[in-house]
This record gives sequence, structure tokens and C-alpha cells, in this order.
Amino acid sequence: MFRTILIANRGEIALRVARACREMGIRTVVVHSTQDRDSAAVRYADEAVQIGPPPPRQSYLCAAAILEAARRTGADAIHPGYGFLSEDPDFADACAMEGIVLIGPPAPVMAKLGDKGSARKIMSDAGLPLLPGSLDPLGPEAAHRLADEIGYPVIIKAVAGGGGRGMQVVTRSDDFPDAHRRTRATAQMLFNDGRVYVEKYLRSARHVEIQVLCDAYGNAIHLGERDCSVQRRHQKLIEETPSPRLPDGLAERMGAAAVAGASAVGYVGAGTFEFLVDPDGRYYFMEVNCRIQVEHPVTEAVTGVDLVQEQLRVAAGERLTMTQRDVQPRGVAIECRLNAENPDADFAPTPGLLEEFVVPAGPFVRVDTHAYPGYVVPPNYDSLLAKLIVWAPDRDRAIARMLRALDECRVSGPRISTTRDFLRKVVDHPTFRAAEHNTALVDELFATVGVPAVR
Amino acid sequence: MFRTILIANRGEIALRVARACREMGIRTVVVHSTQDRDSAAVRYADEAVQIGPPPPRQSYLCAAAILEAARRTGADAIHPGYGFLSEDPDFADACAMEGIVLIGPPAPVMAKLGDKGSARKIMSDAGLPLLPGSLDPLGPEAAHRLADEIGYPVIIKAVAGGGGRGMQVVTRSDDFPDAHRRTRATAQMLFNDGRVYVEKYLRSARHVEIQVLCDAYGNAIHLGERDCSVQRRHQKLIEETPSPRLPDGLAERMGAAAVAGASAVGYVGAGTFEFLVDPDGRYYFMEVNCRIQVEHPVTEAVTGVDLVQEQLRVAAGERLTMTQRDVQPRGVAIECRLNAENPDADFAPTPGLLEEFVVPAGPFVRVDTHAYPGYVVPPNYDSLLAKLIVWAPDRDRAIARMLRALDECRVSGPRISTTRDFLRKVVDHPTFRAAEHNTALVDELFATVGVPAVR
Repeated sequence: MFRTILIANRGEIALRVARACREMGIRTVVVHSTQDRDSAAVRYADEAVQIGPPPPRQSYLCAAAILEAARRTGADAIHPGYGFLSEDPDFADACAMEGIVLIGPPAPVMAKLGDKGSARKIMSDAGLPLLPGSLDPLGPEAAHRLADEIGYPVIIKAVAGGGGRGMQVVTRSDDFPDAHRRTRATAQMLFNDGRVYVEKYLRSARHVEIQVLCDAYGNAIHLGERDCSVQRRHQKLIEETPSPRLPDGLAERMGAAAVAGASAVGYVGAGTFEFLVDPDGRYYFMEVNCRIQVEHPVTEAVTGVDLVQEQLRVAAGERLTMTQRDVQPRGVAIECRLNAENPDADFAPTPGLLEEFVVPAGPFVRVDTHAYPGYVVPPNYDSLLAKLIVWAPDRDRAIARMLRALDECRVSGPRISTTRDFLRKVVDHPTFRAAEHNTALVDELFATVGVPAVR
Repeated sequence: MFRTILIANRGEIALRVARACREMGIRTVVVHSTQDRDSAAVRYADEAVQIGPPPPRQSYLCAAAILEAARRTGADAIHPGYGFLSEDPDFADACAMEGIVLIGPPAPVMAKLGDKGSARKIMSDAGLPLLPGSLDPLGPEAAHRLADEIGYPVIIKAVAGGGGRGMQVVTRSDDFPDAHRRTRATAQMLFNDGRVYVEKYLRSARHVEIQVLCDAYGNAIHLGERDCSVQRRHQKLIEETPSPRLPDGLAERMGAAAVAGASAVGYVGAGTFEFLVDPDGRYYFMEVNCRIQVEHPVTEAVTGVDLVQEQLRVAAGERLTMTQRDVQPRGVAIECRLNAENPDADFAPTPGLLEEFVVPAGPFVRVDTHAYPGYVVPPNYDSLLAKLIVWAPDRDRAIARMLRALDECRVSGPRISTTRDFLRKVVDHPTFRAAEHNTALVDELFATVGVPAVR
């Protein structure tokens, strides 16, 4: 097992990883920007190294500074968390050159899956169904012809995108050229890679993803599915497992497909296969996320598996001790992402001081947070304040428990707004309660309460 | 289901019960002493009624004040928590007369089991093995003769006792008369009932108890065992489930015995059958606790059953929806009781202001606490600050997780000491790690570290 792990992230996930290391007797080093010098992870870790000023490009995205910190502190592995450098094949390469293990799949696998076109090809060859669309990035005219062929709406996505960033839905042929140009520009800016591809867009689909876990010896299992259909602008807000109201046997088939895909690409570590499921119960592969995900705790809650500890074991060259048969999910888990945002101002982030910060506790409630009373939410990073995760034997009781948990949150400060009341409205909504929602729920809800739907 | 439940308790259990009610859509009223007016439960409940000054006899033990509050607030049931009036058959009778449901077994059952002599008789008739001793309270001479016959050490226990209070171990015949007199005096003072009985005392036994759950229609199940062998002066400090290193099949036999005992006495509700297990794997019935217990969360963690919600359902006349076969415990759970006590001063309580109060969180950790930064631990009640409960797939990982959780606790104040470091020492001790401990562990540990063993 590793002796020292450097955590190249911040916020709740840095703390989450540090906790796993502590339980496994692994020394932790956390890197941080000047902004995060008083963070919970910095206090928690055995050692902390300041690597730069607040802007991510100068700190959490600065591979050289992170590798220098790893060298200096004798880290034998780096956990990248999610976001930042977690899916950057160049960073993975650089780690490998330094002889430091990056906790995640091998760099070539990461590169193949990071290119959404190549990922689609590999998975299509492995038998996973794709939505109609292009396997290659196309020029503007060819893309437009393809979109007209597929039929609208279509979605234009960055080849180097992922996690819901760099996409645009187009509903009419006339709008296509402009949208294509804009998406390319955005992709160039966000990912330094302007290539985009076109896919059929499903209006009323569910987002269902499969958690896989693979060791370096060809053993691959899945840990069931997560339903992440409650989204706003392709950002997940609420996640749950199992996925409610799926046709019989569908989750198992998707799990088997994900394992087949993982094996085909030589995946190692924890990863997520994202799918869309249409109202007729057909599923379509979207992308693979080569990292631990924000919503991993719901899978932990029903399986009892500590996914971060499993990541570390597999990265250290241990074999999986579980087989598919050992994975026996129990009950229902739901996660809500509590963000420091103002839902009445188009979810604008509301950084600033947290004067009051009380999170729920008690039976079957887990809270992962890096915030505390007196913490100042910085303006430079994402607005996640806390993840609330509840477990119950069935979905109705899990919903009741989540409402109880949300009611226990008390977060305030001179400029802070949170998404608590908004989340409460969604969880308590008849459509969500009946599990009849799809990825359009939030827009629909917004239309209902008079706030313009966001496109 | 009940519409309004009055919670006749304080501290973490009052909050625990209020949370269960909230999830079930039941209105809550909490009664409180003047001391507890700013308590977490008071803030949490829908309504709060002040019933008297801090001394328990004038508030939490004052049946008349509690019933008056119930009448005034229209409560249709009372949850007594643990301690205080939770096992008082007179209070149960008084509630029945008012037409208010007391959440617990019927008053006559409570009376039979509260009298330890009568409980021993009933359980002996139901086939449960007893330690050698008297079934009836005996006079001083007869008791002394019996003790000589049984052989020392013996333990003298109050007939009306329970929860580890009002007992005395006697190791030599010469000490018996004095000890008998003292125990009677203590029992008279504590329970207003000076009757005592004599039992063989096992030096190196394990304390193992069975959680039962029974409805009013004769259905009874058990939810596995809890090992509470880490005790100091018969007070539990650390509890876990399953009980490690029990002979094969023993827990199942004890479970079946507890169910038989519960059925024999007509038990309704959640209850606990306490046993001692000697080094040869023989078990002996001790007593039944007619209430929810402090350590109930470890059972919840492995079974997924919310015991307080089940208490409410059964008390409202619902049938058990689970059968014995539905109870499928998974993994290992450990609870540590974090007390505001000074282990270096014979565990003297250290009431006062909590300037800092940080409790652990994250994966598979639950904390039940009523304390918060700024809370003043009152001198009038027990010294429990928080219950830390961890779950893991196996005992080694549960221990690692508990150590991590204990390390995350930061509690300080001008006069506050806590048992954190002491608990850490026990959990990390080779004897505990190897599960070779028994109820003598804490005394032995104390001898080791130079503090005189307490008798």
C-alpha cells in the first residue's frame, strides 16, 4: 500500500479522500491555493503545501506545482479527486514519468475515453448502443447535413468535454450553424480543443449511470446504477440509487454492458459509464468518467463499499476482493447537492462568509462537507457547500428522510443564499415522488413557478 | 398513526425521537426543565413545554407535570426515551388512565420485568438459563447463607434496579453482611425499594444483549445481538454488533431464547434481553430493559431498521411488517459514548461551556448528539455528549474507522474534559482489537496505566 498520498484537490472531496487515507494508515499531503489555506482538508491532512494563488490555472490545474509538491513530500501516489486534473491524460503521463502513481485509469485509457469520439467508437465496438450521431468530429456543413438527417433536436458536444460542460441543444435546422460555431468556440476556450460532434437529443430521457470497479488483472465488476436525472443545465443536482421505475432487468443489462465496455478498453480503477434511457426503456451510451464522482456516496450507502478505499487498493496493485455476486445493494439512497447559489437569480454563486452553518445528522444521514461556521466560500471555485446523503429501506422513506435532513440545514451569512429550499421543492414535488421525472424536470418546475426555463 | 407525540426526555435521545417523528409526519412536543430551555430538542420540536426546575424529580421525573403538558398540547402518545420515567410502571398506569399511549410495553408487563426477581422467575419458566442465585429477595442471614452456598464472588443487586445501578460485588464471606446492608440502603435511596437479591458473579464474562421487537398481535422477532462488554462500574462505554468471537450458533440460540421470553411475558414494543456469556460459551439471562437503549444505533446500522420508528408503529397498533427472515444484519457497527468526564479524576463529570465542539462525519459515521458550540453541559444530568457510531464490512475496518472518528472530535471549554482519549486507548488496545476482552477490560486497563482499579 502507498505510504504517502498527495491530494490534488480541494473542498469536500479532498477531505473525503483524506479520511479514507487516515483509516488505511496512509500519510496525507494536501496541496492548496492561498485562498484555501484554512480549509478543512488542510487542517485534516498530515501535511499541506501551498502551490499558488486562487485561480485554478495557477494552483489546482498547475501540474508542475503539484508534481513539485509530490516530489518534495515524498508522495508515492496522487489522488486527483474530481474536476481539475482528474481526467487529464497529460497529467497522468507526467505522473508516470515521475514514477508517481496517479489514482485513476492508465494514461492511454484516460486519453481514449477523454476523446468522446474515440470513446463512442470503442464502446460501439464493445456492443454498447449509441444515440444516432457522428463518430468523428465533422466540419460545419457535414455536421449540419448529419443533424438534418438525424432530425431535431440534436445536441452538439465538445469532443474533449464531459461532466455536462460544453454542450448545446439545437431544436431547428436554421439555428444549427450559429450553435455549431458557438459550441466550437466554447470548447476551444474551455478545453483548448475546438472539435465538436453531433448527437440526437432526447427531450425526456433519464440519466442513468453505472459505477464500475476494475483491477489491473482484468477483473471488473459494477456496483449498480445511479439515477442523476434531476439536472439543471446538464449539472446534476440530485442523485439516487437504485434508478426508480426502470423496466425489469434493464439496470442489470446496463451493468453488464458497462463491465463489457470497461474490459474492452482495459479500464483500471473506479469509473462511471453514463447512459441515457428513453421513455421506451432503450438505453444509449454517452461517456465514461475516469474518476470518483460527486455522487459516489449513494452507491456506498447501498453497497457498503468504500469506493475511495477501493480506488486506493486497486491503484496500489491489489486484486479486487469482491466478485459481482458479492455486490448486494440494499435499500435506497438519495443525495442532494447543497450549493451556495441564489435560485432566484438564475443560480448565481453567492460566495462569502458563513456565519451559521448547521448540517443534519442522526440515523441514516451522511453529510460530506468542507464548510464550517466562519468559513468563507471563495469565489474562485465551484459552489458546492455540502452533499446530503440519506439511506432508507424504500424510496418513500428516503424522501421523508431527505426532507427532514434538508429542514435541519441552517446556513446563513451576509451574502449567502443556498439551494436548500429549491432542493426541498424538487424532492417534495409529486413528479419526483412518483419518479416520473426526467432530465427536463427542473426546467419544467421553473416554468411552473414563473421563472423562465433555461436553455 | 399518532398525530402528536410528547417527548418526555432530554439530550440526544429527545432529538433522536423528534427526528423519527418528523420523518413520519408526526407533530412533536418536547418537555424540558428550565436548564434545558435552549436545548437542541427544544429548538427542533414543533412545540416545547417547560415543566420545572433542573432537578429531575421536579421535571423529567415529575409524572404529573408531564401528563399536564400532554393534556394541554393534545398529545396522543408519550415517548419516554431511556432513563427517567421510561421503565416506571406507575407512570405507564397514569398514562393509560389519561388515555395517552406510553410508547413501551403495557404497564403490567413493565411491572413484571421491572421486578428483577419476578423477571428471573418468568424467564426461567420460559426456559432461559439463570445464574445460580435467589429468585426472591432474602433477609440478611438467608442471603448470606445462599452466597456461601453459591461461592464467591457474588453480586448483590436491587430488585428494582437496572441499567447497572444499585449493585455490589462481594468477594469474601466476611464482607457480605456489610455489602448487603449498603446495597439495601442504596436501593432504598435510588429506587424507593430496599429489596435486593443475590447472584453468582462472573469475573470474566461478556455482556451480550438481544434486541427484540414485538407487536400487539403476538408477533415477535429479534434483531441480533449487541456486545456491551466494555464497561466501567457496570456502565457501558463501547458497544458493538455482532458480538465478536461468540461460539458458532450461540447468538442465534440467544436470539431465539429472547423471542421465547418476550412471547412468554406478552412483550410489546422494542426491548432488550441482557445476558452474560461465560468463557465456556454458556449464557445466562440477567434482565429485560423495557425501553429503547442508548446503544440501539449499532443495531440500526447493521439491519437498516429504524428502531424508534418501529417503536412508534407498534405502539400505534400496527403489525410488524418484518419477519425473522427479513432481518439480515450486514457488517459490523461500533458505538463509543463520548462523555464530559475527566478520566484522570475517576471520571468525574465536567459540566460547563463547550467553546469548541466538532464531531466526525463522512462515510459510514453517524453521530447522535444534542450538543453544539456554545452549549453549556448542565451539572444535573448524565454526562453523555455524543454517541459516535461507525459501520464497516468487518471489525478491523470498523475499528480503523472509529479511531478516525475519535480523532476528528474536537471538544473544549474552560472546564470540559472528555473521554475521547480514553476511548481511543480502549479501541486501539490489543485485547479489544483481538476481541479477547470481557467486562473486566476497563479495570485491567486502568491497573496497567497506573490508575487504581475501581470497585
